[in-house]
Amino acid sequence: MEKIDLLIKNVAILTLDSKNTSLKNGFIAVKKEKIIAVGVSGDEKNYSAKKLIEGREMLALPGLINAHTHAAMVYFRGIADDLPLKEWLEKHIWPAEAKYVNPHFIREAIKLAAIEMLKSGTTSFCDMYFAEDEAAEVLEQIGIRSFLGEGLLDFPTPISSTPEEGLRRAEELIKKWQGSSLIHPIVAPHAPYTCSADLLKSAKELSDKYNVPLHIHLAEEKWEVEKIEEEKGMSPVAYLQDLDFLGKRTSAAHVNWVSEDDVKILAQTKTGVVHNPESNLKLATGFCPVPDLLSAGVKVALGTDGATSNNNLDMFEEMSLCARLHKGLKKDPTTLKAKEVLRLATMGGAEILNAQDEIGSIEVGKKADIILLDLKQPHLVPLYDLASQVVYAAKSSDVKTVIVNGKIIVENGRILTVDEDEVIAKAQAFAQKFKS
Amino acid sequence: MEKIDLLIKNVAILTLDSKNTSLKNGFIAVKKEKIIAVGVSGDEKNYSAKKLIEGREMLALPGLINAHTHAAMVYFRGIADDLPLKEWLEKHIWPAEAKYVNPHFIREAIKLAAIEMLKSGTTSFCDMYFAEDEAAEVLEQIGIRSFLGEGLLDFPTPISSTPEEGLRRAEELIKKWQGSSLIHPIVAPHAPYTCSADLLKSAKELSDKYNVPLHIHLAEEKWEVEKIEEEKGMSPVAYLQDLDFLGKRTSAAHVNWVSEDDVKILAQTKTGVVHNPESNLKLATGFCPVPDLLSAGVKVALGTDGATSNNNLDMFEEMSLCARLHKGLKKDPTTLKAKEVLRLATMGGAEILNAQDEIGSIEVGKKADIILLDLKQPHLVPLYDLASQVVYAAKSSDVKTVIVNGKIIVENGRILTVDEDEVIAKAQAFAQKFKS
Repeated sequence: MEKIDLLIKNVAILTLDSKNTSLKNGFIAVKKEKIIAVGVSGDEKNYSAKKLIEGREMLALPGLINAHTHAAMVYFRGIADDLPLKEWLEKHIWPAEAKYVNPHFIREAIKLAAIEMLKSGTTSFCDMYFAEDEAAEVLEQIGIRSFLGEGLLDFPTPISSTPEEGLRRAEELIKKWQGSSLIHPIVAPHAPYTCSADLLKSAKELSDKYNVPLHIHLAEEKWEVEKIEEEKGMSPVAYLQDLDFLGKRTSAAHVNWVSEDDVKILAQTKTGVVHNPESNLKLATGFCPVPDLLSAGVKVALGTDGATSNNNLDMFEEMSLCARLHKGLKKDPTTLKAKEVLRLATMGGAEILNAQDEIGSIEVGKKADIILLDLKQPHLVPLYDLASQVVYAAKSSDVKTVIVNGKIIVENGRILTVDEDEVIAKAQAFAQKFKS
Repeated sequence: MEKIDLLIKNVAILTLDSKNTSLKNGFIAVKKEKIIAVGVSGDEKNYSAKKLIEGREMLALPGLINAHTHAAMVYFRGIADDLPLKEWLEKHIWPAEAKYVNPHFIREAIKLAAIEMLKSGTTSFCDMYFAEDEAAEVLEQIGIRSFLGEGLLDFPTPISSTPEEGLRRAEELIKKWQGSSLIHPIVAPHAPYTCSADLLKSAKELSDKYNVPLHIHLAEEKWEVEKIEEEKGMSPVAYLQDLDFLGKRTSAAHVNWVSEDDVKILAQTKTGVVHNPESNLKLATGFCPVPDLLSAGVKVALGTDGATSNNNLDMFEEMSLCARLHKGLKKDPTTLKAKEVLRLATMGGAEILNAQDEIGSIEVGKKADIILLDLKQPHLVPLYDLASQVVYAAKSSDVKTVIVNGKIIVENGRILTVDEDEVIAKAQAFAQKFKS
């Protein structure tokens, strides 16, 4: 009998391994942070576990990976919707950030975001925002896997008054957290149109120096592309390639306005793309050509973007929309099949974060980032195909148990590591202050 | 003190009345089937209620109206996804219907659909399927408001071997149920390309004779339009106008492929349109030009379509997608604002079903079809705008209480009028039979 920490038994499993192995009735054995065995029911008898989860009528999936968000913006969820983009940004979002975002705000708001993400099945997220070191301390306590990058811009941010200060914070974040099992520092310059060539180069150097992911917004809106083309004489993608910014550690969010040549560059440089369908539609910024990117061999992941442009952090909604939207746009219902979209939301995220050896699938040796869905729901029966049910019929509220790094963080739909009522009360109090 | 049956107090309310009145803290008084008072908190003191619902941190909305579905198809949820349309229909859906659909199937499958709809906040639905009389008996017991039309086609259905038999069933359904407070018979010829001109005319006559709604599929796919244009020398919309089929009692589902002239005809004849965004994207059938229809004065409602093409019956997902999709397509983030979309899912449905005096809003004199959402959720705080929160952030799992016709059908997320476990077990047993 091998002693282990956690055993999930009698559970259906979509492993998302390279063969897309699925098990109708299986088990997962977890020791410390890692998955040490996955197999068919009956074979778990060799393990003696401190904690047993009975998985009957449940489905185990790798935890979802939200590969692009600005999580702390949940405190501004719904302050300004259905507005022209310029008005939305300049009259609402930027003034709100300038007035309210500070380390205290980040500490409180990030708790709410972490609860929302964990309860909806997200076990890892990639964040570009401010005061990420403050966020990291809270997130480590709550227990969500976090890829955090201090937003770098040419102009003052709510936290850093100069780009140099931003870079210094970014390097401090790396030095402090690199090697942590849950907090993964990254470098996050905002966009080609808000960062000088020097700032982009410095960001890339930092990423190279410490071997950490580099994350940026790219070609989200048409005017950005036209602006860069006018100023630099090339597309934003070509401009970033010219700066030697692209590469296997680099991922870019949105990527709505790209030419065939741009797509080739992204594929050749092994740059990852994060598709944010709910945000892109809501802000009417454009359509990321996901099927074309995948055909060209570009790595693609899914993200929610921030709650001001979404207005939630629910990866089940992104999967459902991604699978549907591109069928409609391509006029072909065989585009982006359910199992492909589920891969984007799991292994896809792991790959663009260069964490594919650690997370993204339920396999021996990987970190135990696992979610359990309750299949005994009126909208989830009858059941013919697991991936199809997850992408087209399941909701985030079907997530009952969430395990991150081998630790149970959500159990029976309740978060164990933070006082949800208190976090909600503080968010409500913030809204009162904001409105007055 | 006036004695009443039900009082909901201390509740936020979006009434969806003609002024879009919202109350931060209000009450709703219900006597028998109807709403007899709506007002601000404090003014409920004149009522003595048999049942009191404390609405603190809840939002009351009119029950959602799913204006186009084939509800009993939930038993086929996920049997065939991500396939070319012809293969999907001819190799999977039609054979499954031919083999399995019979009155017993309908009685069981419709229970599952009713539970899914009620628990997700739908209090009324408009159905086109088979053995609707069998469905009606079950639905009346469960307590969901149902607009039911026996599917009429030129060829044999699983229930009727000839169109004449279909028409006879349709008339029997009307005679039996007209005047019922929950079951509203309608006439439902399938589509212009599956019904002869004679059948369409007979269906219209039946609708006229009994003054009941007439519901049809229209211009869902491009090839249908081309086929009718070739055969009849005019668009499907013009063809139906030519047959005198259109009018204020008529509603048409999908309406993806329409010209400017078609839109004018729909507006002039006061024909309603039901938009099914999740189904249309998933099957890649086209895009209903909702903003153009609304600008032209066409009545528009929302629907899920059947679970084989969706694969759920969740109106919150339709609202979210509808609000986003048309922004993206129109390249304008001010298109279809949250409050407009919420109206489509409530009053919009009521109007196209000619039930606008009975349902669709929380107003004195209307039937008490009311849903309560739990606003104390991590994804629903902070709260700045109620309509925005409902459309962009809420999920159907936030629905805790559902009242139909003055009766509480779902309380604290549990359905009271049917044994959910038994219905789920039967659906699972059906899947076993189907797969073997």
